[in-house]
Amino acid sequence: MSQYRTFTAADAVEYARQFGGVADLVDSLEVGDGNLNLVFKIFDTKGISRIIIKQALPYVRCVGESWPLTLDRARIEAEVLNIHGQFCPEHTVKILHYDPQLAVMVMEDLSSLAIWRGEQVKGVDYPQAAAQLGEYLAKTLFHTSDFFQHPHQKKADVARFTNPELCDITEELFFNEPYEVHERNGYPRALEPLVASLRTDDALRLNVAALKHRFLSNAEALLHGDVHSGSIFVGDNTLKVIDAEFGYYGPIGFDVGSALGNLLLNYCALPGLLVPREAADAREKRLNDVRRLWRRFSERFLALAAENSRDRALAYPGYGDAFMRKIWQDTLGFCGTELIRRTVGMSQVADIKEIDDETMKIECVRQAITLGRTLILAAHQIDDIDALIARVRQNG
Amino acid sequence: MSQYRTFTAADAVEYARQFGGVADLVDSLEVGDGNLNLVFKIFDTKGISRIIIKQALPYVRCVGESWPLTLDRARIEAEVLNIHGQFCPEHTVKILHYDPQLAVMVMEDLSSLAIWRGEQVKGVDYPQAAAQLGEYLAKTLFHTSDFFQHPHQKKADVARFTNPELCDITEELFFNEPYEVHERNGYPRALEPLVASLRTDDALRLNVAALKHRFLSNAEALLHGDVHSGSIFVGDNTLKVIDAEFGYYGPIGFDVGSALGNLLLNYCALPGLLVPREAADAREKRLNDVRRLWRRFSERFLALAAENSRDRALAYPGYGDAFMRKIWQDTLGFCGTELIRRTVGMSQVADIKEIDDETMKIECVRQAITLGRTLILAAHQIDDIDALIARVRQNG
Repeated sequence: MSQYRTFTAADAVEYARQFGGVADLVDSLEVGDGNLNLVFKIFDTKGISRIIIKQALPYVRCVGESWPLTLDRARIEAEVLNIHGQFCPEHTVKILHYDPQLAVMVMEDLSSLAIWRGEQVKGVDYPQAAAQLGEYLAKTLFHTSDFFQHPHQKKADVARFTNPELCDITEELFFNEPYEVHERNGYPRALEPLVASLRTDDALRLNVAALKHRFLSNAEALLHGDVHSGSIFVGDNTLKVIDAEFGYYGPIGFDVGSALGNLLLNYCALPGLLVPREAADAREKRLNDVRRLWRRFSERFLALAAENSRDRALAYPGYGDAFMRKIWQDTLGFCGTELIRRTVGMSQVADIKEIDDETMKIECVRQAITLGRTLILAAHQIDDIDALIARVRQNG
Repeated sequence: MSQYRTFTAADAVEYARQFGGVADLVDSLEVGDGNLNLVFKIFDTKGISRIIIKQALPYVRCVGESWPLTLDRARIEAEVLNIHGQFCPEHTVKILHYDPQLAVMVMEDLSSLAIWRGEQVKGVDYPQAAAQLGEYLAKTLFHTSDFFQHPHQKKADVARFTNPELCDITEELFFNEPYEVHERNGYPRALEPLVASLRTDDALRLNVAALKHRFLSNAEALLHGDVHSGSIFVGDNTLKVIDAEFGYYGPIGFDVGSALGNLLLNYCALPGLLVPREAADAREKRLNDVRRLWRRFSERFLALAAENSRDRALAYPGYGDAFMRKIWQDTLGFCGTELIRRTVGMSQVADIKEIDDETMKIECVRQAITLGRTLILAAHQIDDIDALIARVRQNG
């Protein structure tokens, strides 16, 4: 009955009528700007967007049918968001319905909100957003970790969220290609000497290998897997995370580091995006975001570990703090790899792309790369969030 | 056709005739002395044991039907042994046939060999055994790790070897019960003050929590999961590992630490098992075993990492050495938990049980517990195998 077929605009409206729980849906618009999926906004008779339909395509959209990609990612995305929504409903997009055969999700409409990255690029501040993202990370990661989950449930979920094809993308784009000569890399040619120096930096390569190894083997919690400011809607005192198709059981620091890395990318890009005084002001706000995100994440996670841990050994007083030091180290390292893969590698971000002045762009990219390298190399000498912020300022 | 039924002696003979590839099988004897399974030796017309049939029971044999246990463990055992046999045929028992419905394995007969623990208890030395076990560990663990396995294959195997019920036993017996007041614990009452001091040792409890957390979350390689001297047959220049039903993807140091822990348990027990001069001599041999096992394991694993790593990031020169330092730390910690769980906890070993003199037994157990505690607490100060051996001598 529900064999896979690619949705037309009319199909999307019909499907939304059936499963969206909203009357008077009449029209749709395909707005997918990502690399992988169809995304339809479904409008009511007043022309208001009420429902979102997202359908996975059986190939990488931005490449074409020559790069096939599993439809199973729609199941994973929907199930990750359902689980995250169970533990942090306030910051997880609501899934109204999903069909694994059609690889379709019906979601709440978030059109009244804005994508955080776009707002950061324009220099618009959302002072609550960083803490809210910290809250999301703490609640979703704690409750899917060994602290809280029954071991049988966790083992079953590790198997259920096996996500080989999407993890493959991360394994390549984060941990391999930026440190190799690779056709997919996207850095400015002027930075060739800097990028070449990454390839031959033994200490850096060994630390990146260790980070990749932890990405491959440390099943600490059910990650979102792609937490960046383009996967986050913000509004007045509201934050909603979307796009969890990269979800799998991995190291907690990967999600936290990706989140911080995108804030720091924006920090590095701001001098190219805004006039000097505005840029300086926005940079301070971004550093505040970095501090607030980490503080809320770590405080909330530790409070949950102290109060709600179910595992008898991990509940021992003080173990949460010991484990948080490990998360911090991982966070710094993965944050560094995010800075590098978004500048050297294939997946470039609007924060950099929107810089018009070529010289300025190169300087911003240079800063992001050197900061990334510092975080990967010096993680063990960066003891806490204040030390991180001092390093960021030192970097330029 | 092959629905589960408990084998009689006659069933076992019939089954061995069908799947053992040996003619003239006429008789059988149930010899299972473990806690979980039926084990039949199948004899030919000359009364020579030719084939082993092992059948999992749907409950814990030594407790009874009140403690049910999954039959899926027979599948896991057979598949782990098949994979380990693919990478280290010389030291893995050969599986001739298995049936997941009947939870039955048909295996090569190893009656000409002896269980290593029994030999160690008697003071019989097998000078090649430790290096052979190191070889087994290096080959099986390297080839099932991220260094060698394709990420898709590894992820599929992590799911395939999800082993919740058997892991549960380890999680309880290794990491919880010895550090709690628990009815299943089996230490001598005279050691109550020492054992009580473990429960309140914050640093110890935090390190044990971290080890348990790594056991729960670090899917580094397909472990045997229960490598102890009672799961190993030895003979002249021969060693065969059996009993892999605890297999799952876990931290490499768990298998290596369990193996070393059992050698050190024997070291601690020897003064109670042999007359003083023999005991002193056997203890030196055991320390040599400890050194040889680690050396062969680490050298072989590093050679494989240097030559056969398929992962581009993990193949970076020197990463194997960096990772080996992590394995070493884990090995010390898990070795410490093995020493404690075999003396304080439920699963006592013959090395200790066979000591007749009660005062001597208490002294040997005390030594094993204090050594275990030292290894868990001081792992970061024990840099290499010589430092470990120095610590063992210091302990008494």
